[in-house]
Amino acid sequence: MNKLLCSILFSSLFCFDVSAQNSEYWSSEDSLQVRLIYNEALSNGESYNNLRVLCKDVGHRLTGSPQAAKAIEWGLATMQELNLDTVYLQEIKAPHWERGDVEELKVSFDPGEFEGTHEYELDVLSIGGSVGTNGILRAQIIEVASLAELKERASEVKGKIVFYNKPMDPRIIDPFNAYGACAGHRYIGASAASKYGAVGVIVRSLGGKKDDIPHTGSMIYEDGVVEIPALSVSTNDADALHNMILKAPVSAAMSMNCESFEDIVTYNVIGEVRGSSEASKYMIMGGHLDSWDVGEGAHDDGAGCVQSMEALRVLLATGYRPRHSIRVILFMNEENGNEGGKHYADYALSAEEEHLLAMETDRGGFSPRGFSIDGTDLQVRMIDQLELLLEPYGLHYFEAGYAGVDIAPLKADRDKVHPQLLMVGLVPDPQRYFDYHHTEEDVFETVNQRELELGGASMSALLYLLDRHWNKINEYE
Amino acid sequence: MNKLLCSILFSSLFCFDVSAQNSEYWSSEDSLQVRLIYNEALSNGESYNNLRVLCKDVGHRLTGSPQAAKAIEWGLATMQELNLDTVYLQEIKAPHWERGDVEELKVSFDPGEFEGTHEYELDVLSIGGSVGTNGILRAQIIEVASLAELKERASEVKGKIVFYNKPMDPRIIDPFNAYGACAGHRYIGASAASKYGAVGVIVRSLGGKKDDIPHTGSMIYEDGVVEIPALSVSTNDADALHNMILKAPVSAAMSMNCESFEDIVTYNVIGEVRGSSEASKYMIMGGHLDSWDVGEGAHDDGAGCVQSMEALRVLLATGYRPRHSIRVILFMNEENGNEGGKHYADYALSAEEEHLLAMETDRGGFSPRGFSIDGTDLQVRMIDQLELLLEPYGLHYFEAGYAGVDIAPLKADRDKVHPQLLMVGLVPDPQRYFDYHHTEEDVFETVNQRELELGGASMSALLYLLDRHWNKINEYE
Repeated sequence: MNKLLCSILFSSLFCFDVSAQNSEYWSSEDSLQVRLIYNEALSNGESYNNLRVLCKDVGHRLTGSPQAAKAIEWGLATMQELNLDTVYLQEIKAPHWERGDVEELKVSFDPGEFEGTHEYELDVLSIGGSVGTNGILRAQIIEVASLAELKERASEVKGKIVFYNKPMDPRIIDPFNAYGACAGHRYIGASAASKYGAVGVIVRSLGGKKDDIPHTGSMIYEDGVVEIPALSVSTNDADALHNMILKAPVSAAMSMNCESFEDIVTYNVIGEVRGSSEASKYMIMGGHLDSWDVGEGAHDDGAGCVQSMEALRVLLATGYRPRHSIRVILFMNEENGNEGGKHYADYALSAEEEHLLAMETDRGGFSPRGFSIDGTDLQVRMIDQLELLLEPYGLHYFEAGYAGVDIAPLKADRDKVHPQLLMVGLVPDPQRYFDYHHTEEDVFETVNQRELELGGASMSALLYLLDRHWNKINEYE
Repeated sequence: MNKLLCSILFSSLFCFDVSAQNSEYWSSEDSLQVRLIYNEALSNGESYNNLRVLCKDVGHRLTGSPQAAKAIEWGLATMQELNLDTVYLQEIKAPHWERGDVEELKVSFDPGEFEGTHEYELDVLSIGGSVGTNGILRAQIIEVASLAELKERASEVKGKIVFYNKPMDPRIIDPFNAYGACAGHRYIGASAASKYGAVGVIVRSLGGKKDDIPHTGSMIYEDGVVEIPALSVSTNDADALHNMILKAPVSAAMSMNCESFEDIVTYNVIGEVRGSSEASKYMIMGGHLDSWDVGEGAHDDGAGCVQSMEALRVLLATGYRPRHSIRVILFMNEENGNEGGKHYADYALSAEEEHLLAMETDRGGFSPRGFSIDGTDLQVRMIDQLELLLEPYGLHYFEAGYAGVDIAPLKADRDKVHPQLLMVGLVPDPQRYFDYHHTEEDVFETVNQRELELGGASMSALLYLLDRHWNKINEYE
C-alpha cells in the first residue's frame, strides 16, 4: 500500500518509477504463469478430494499405528499418479507411543456448603509420550499458572498433581503466538514438576475457545527425572477445576494406560522431478503425513500433504518444466519426534545434495495470507517484492520468520551443504487453527475447498517464481 | 511491504524518514488506543453471544415476517443495554413477500436409452419477489448461459421455461466478483425472459460449491412485463439438468405458491451517542437486521448487526468519548427493497444532518482483511496510510471500492448535505461467504467467535481513528 504513500510524497516523480524499472525482477510472463497456476488449481484442483480420501479412508495416523502405514501407502499411490520422475519411500526410525484405552480424571472436593463430597469426571486426553498411571493415581491437586509459579511454590508440590492452568491469551492477535506462550507447560511441564516431587500433571488444553474438547500434543521427559503421567483437560473443565480449587482442596483420581514401545521403522514418502538445467540442486516442499491419534488430522497436516502434492501437480500441468530438481516430501513423525525431518536433513547432508529451497505447509488449510521466510536479509527483501505480483491472489504477508518443523533440521547444515538455503512456510489465516488442533474435531468437514486450493496454488506460484528467478533473488545488487 | 522495497532503493536515506515525519497523522497515543480497543473486543466481547441470541431465539427474519418484528425488539433491547444517549425506531414502509409452503420442480425426459420417461424432483427455492405458479406450470426447458444467449435465441423461448445456467467462475479469486458476474440472471432474468414469451425461469444457484443446497435471493419485475415465476436450483441439480438437456428435451412441472402482499410498516433500529464537540455531524455504522427466510441470517447479516453494536460498545468501554455524533443502525429490508437504507438517507437529507462517515459490514463474519473505501482520492490515500498502524491486527486491504447497500443511498445527497461523505465497508476474507449466502446453512455455527470479534474491533478502531483525525484526513496537504 505504501506506493500510495510514496505517490503522495513524491508525486510519482521517481519513487515507484525507479522501483518498477530496477527491482521487479519478475516479468509480465511471470504474471501470466501465476494466473495459469491459479486457474488450474481452482478449476481442476485435486487436493480437496485427496484430503477427503486421506481423512475418511485412512483417518488419524500417529507414527507406528496401522493407519500411519496405510497413510504411507496412500501417499505413495497418490504421488505415483502425478507422473513424476521417481516416487519412493525413505526409511526412518521413530518413536512408537500408544494411547491405550483408559484415560480418566475424576476429581472430588468438599466445598463445605452441602453435606459430603462432590465428584466430577473431566474431559481429558493423555498427552502424547506420557507414561501411564499403573492403576489409579490418587493425589491432591495444586494449581499453578506458569513454570515460574511452580518454582516459587516448589515446597508445596511434593506428592501432588500439578495443574498448569494458563489460558491462551485472547488479546494476542495471532493465536500461534498465544499458543507458543503456553505450549511449554505441556511439553516440559511433567519434567519440571517431577523435579519437585510431583506425582502427576494436568495441563489446560491449548485451545482457542471455551469448550469440552481436550487437545492432546507432545511432551518429553528430561533425562534422569522420575517419569510422571500427564494429561490435558478441556478448557471448560480447566475453568471448573480452577473454581473448585478456589473453594476447597481438590483430590484427583487419574487413570491412564498409555505406553511407549520400542522405536519402529517407518517412512517419509518422496516424489521427485529432475531439474531441466540445475538437476543437482534441490527445491523441496512438504507437510507431515502423521497426525495425532484423534480426529482425522485434516488441518494438521493432511492439508499440508495434499497442498504440497497439488503445488507440484499444478505447476507441471501448466507446462512449466522446473530448472532445479523438485521434491515433494510427506514427512513422518512430526508430531512426536520429528524423526522424518531429522532423517531427511541427515540424508541430504550425507549425500551432499545442495538444497536451495525448503517450503513447508503446516498451519492448517485456511485462506492463505502469505509466507513466513527464514533466509538471508536479501532473500527476505526480494521475496517481499512479490507482494506486487501476488496481492491480487490475496497474499500480502511476506515477513521474516519461522518456516516449519519438518524442514528446520536442514538449517543446521546451511554452512556445510546448503549455502543458499531459503526456508519458507505458507501462512494461512490463523484464527481458526486452535479450535481444531490436536483434537477429535480436526476433521475433513472443517476444511473449505477454496481455502485449501488457494493455499496449494500459492505454494505453486512461489515455487515457480523461485525456481525461475533463483539467481536474481540471490545475486541482486 | 513496500517500505522494504524503498529501503533497498534509497537505503533509508529519506523515503521513509520523510513519510514517518510528515504523513503519519496518527500518533503513539492512537497506537495505544487501538490496542485497548482490540483488548476489550477479544477479552470481553459481546458480539458472539448477541449473535447466538439473534440466530437461535429469533432465527431468519424476512421483512414483514413475525421474526422480523421479533428481531426489531431484540435490536432495541440489545442496543438499550449499551448505555447510549438515545435508542429508537425509525419507521419505514417496505415490501412484504412470503414464500408460501409449496416450491417444487419436477423434470422429466426420455433419453431414449431405456423404456419410458425419467422423472426427477430437484432441490429448489423460490426466488424472493417471484409470483407463484397458480397451480402446476408445465413447459419445456430451454437452457441458456447468459442474458446475451437468451437474446440470440429469443425466437426459441416462447412458451418455455428459461434455465439460466452460468456457474460462478472458480478462477476469480474474490468470489464476490464471481457472484457479481452471475447475479443479474437471478435479479432481472425473469423480466428478460418474459419479454420473449417465456412462462417461467429456473436459475442456477449462486453458490461457490457443488452441493444440494439452493440459494434464494432477490428479483424484480420490470414495469409492464408479464410476471412469470422464478426459482433457483442447487448447483448439483443445475449440473444434472444440464446433462439431461444434452440428451433429450426436458419438460418441467413447476409449483410455487409464494406471493407478494401490500407494503408493510416496519423499522430501522438506531442507537446514538451525541458528539462531544461536533454533535451536529454524524458518523454511522451498521448492518442489516432483515435476512432471507431460510437459515438464520448469521453471516448475512446478523454478523454485521452485532459487530456494529460491538464496535461502539468497545470504543466507549475504553473510555473514549467521540467528537462527532455516532449512530449504530440496524437497517431493515436490505434483502428485498433496501427501503431501510433509502428511508434513512431521505431522513438525513430532510433533517439536513451532515454525515461524514458511513460504515457498513455486510460481507460475513469472517476474518477481517481491511476496508473498501468509497470517498475522495485524498480520503482513500489517507486511510490507506493506516496500514502501518493496523497491519499488526491482520488488516492490510485499504482500497477504493464499494462500501455497502444500506448506506449507498446517502451518496446521492453528497452534494446537498454530505460534502465530505466517506463510505467504508468492512472487508473480511471472502472465500467461504457464498457457501452459506441465502441458504438454510447460514447458521450461527458457521461463525467463528474470534473472526467475528476481530471484525467488530477493526470497525471500532477505524471509527476511533476517523473520529479523532477527521480534519487531518480531509484537509491534509
